[in-house]
Amino acid sequence: MLKLFHAWGSCSLASYLALEEAGAEYEVAVMNTRGWDQRKPEYLAINPKSRVPALITERGVLTETPAILAYIAQAYPSAQLAPLDDPFAFAEAQAFNSYLCSTVHVAHSHKHRGYRWADDPAALADMTRKVPEVEAACFQLIEDTMFKGPWVLGEAYSICDPYLFTLSGWLADDGVDIGRFPKVAAHAERMLARPAVRKVLAERAA
Amino acid sequence: MLKLFHAWGSCSLASYLALEEAGAEYEVAVMNTRGWDQRKPEYLAINPKSRVPALITERGVLTETPAILAYIAQAYPSAQLAPLDDPFAFAEAQAFNSYLCSTVHVAHSHKHRGYRWADDPAALADMTRKVPEVEAACFQLIEDTMFKGPWVLGEAYSICDPYLFTLSGWLADDGVDIGRFPKVAAHAERMLARPAVRKVLAERAA
Repeated sequence: MLKLFHAWGSCSLASYLALEEAGAEYEVAVMNTRGWDQRKPEYLAINPKSRVPALITERGVLTETPAILAYIAQAYPSAQLAPLDDPFAFAEAQAFNSYLCSTVHVAHSHKHRGYRWADDPAALADMTRKVPEVEAACFQLIEDTMFKGPWVLGEAYSICDPYLFTLSGWLADDGVDIGRFPKVAAHAERMLARPAVRKVLAERAA
Repeated sequence: MLKLFHAWGSCSLASYLALEEAGAEYEVAVMNTRGWDQRKPEYLAINPKSRVPALITERGVLTETPAILAYIAQAYPSAQLAPLDDPFAFAEAQAFNSYLCSTVHVAHSHKHRGYRWADDPAALADMTRKVPEVEAACFQLIEDTMFKGPWVLGEAYSICDPYLFTLSGWLADDGVDIGRFPKVAAHAERMLARPAVRKVLAERAA
């Protein structure tokens, strides 16, 4: 059985939602990243990058959200979570997810995790200050040029949707009103109506 | 015919090398990113993210290095540039490339492009100062836990190899001696012996 190492508030929510949508059999190990669970030796043995998510499969451990999401789509093809038989359409899905991981998530990380790239407290403060501006620019680009609707890729729900939902869920904390991006805001509402999303979020409340 | 928008010194080298390895028919548009070609209206119409690479295909434009690399592997399967028929092995390849784009490339970007995340000149200077430490930590992790050898994924050359070669080529500029990572250093030498790599690099010299 698959086992997902997940932390609430982190990007691993996207993989959790995709597993649920795929109808996979899986269990979840909830990490307390504020308590630095990810730095404990037993977790470093699983993922030496010291990050979530990590997905344990019968073949070994997978990391990195875009890779895990594509894996879930390929391992559960009947769930139709990606255009698997069309290299161009699959690449469009991957490009969207790659933008989320390398640009949008990174922009967000400068709020609380600027220490990855600087040490001076004044530098960290300047990064934190700029986060709303940078995040808003990312979401404006998504709203204007990437989001097709009603789902990210158009008519078909895909692995891009739980990932966008996860990151758009951080906007409020980043000081950005999601209402500035009507398509993204409507997407978040649409996601909240999905049974898989409701089920997973209920776990957090539990 | 495919058309790659490429800038020397940028990560688009990885896609260029992959196209050459794939035996694709393609042309290259060389951008001068120091002259801000990527901000010109005609390029923004192609890629509103204002970055290289962008790959024009008969179906439309693809962006983001990991997506373009996987597309090339899927579009030219006879070149065997990725384990396409094995979702787990394909995910391992994607996880490697995702780490390069979201962590290693991002670490490097804090040297010259810290303005993406801060404004204060002192903050930008502190980011630049920390780059060698952060890049070295990334490559130590690659050396110790990810690189299988002789190629990234083991015996088979893949889309991970030109991407690693591209980013390890930045270490000297980042103030890090590649010799600290013997496997990565030997990989770079191995890459330089490949006809496709020699051919592409000769274009730069031309």
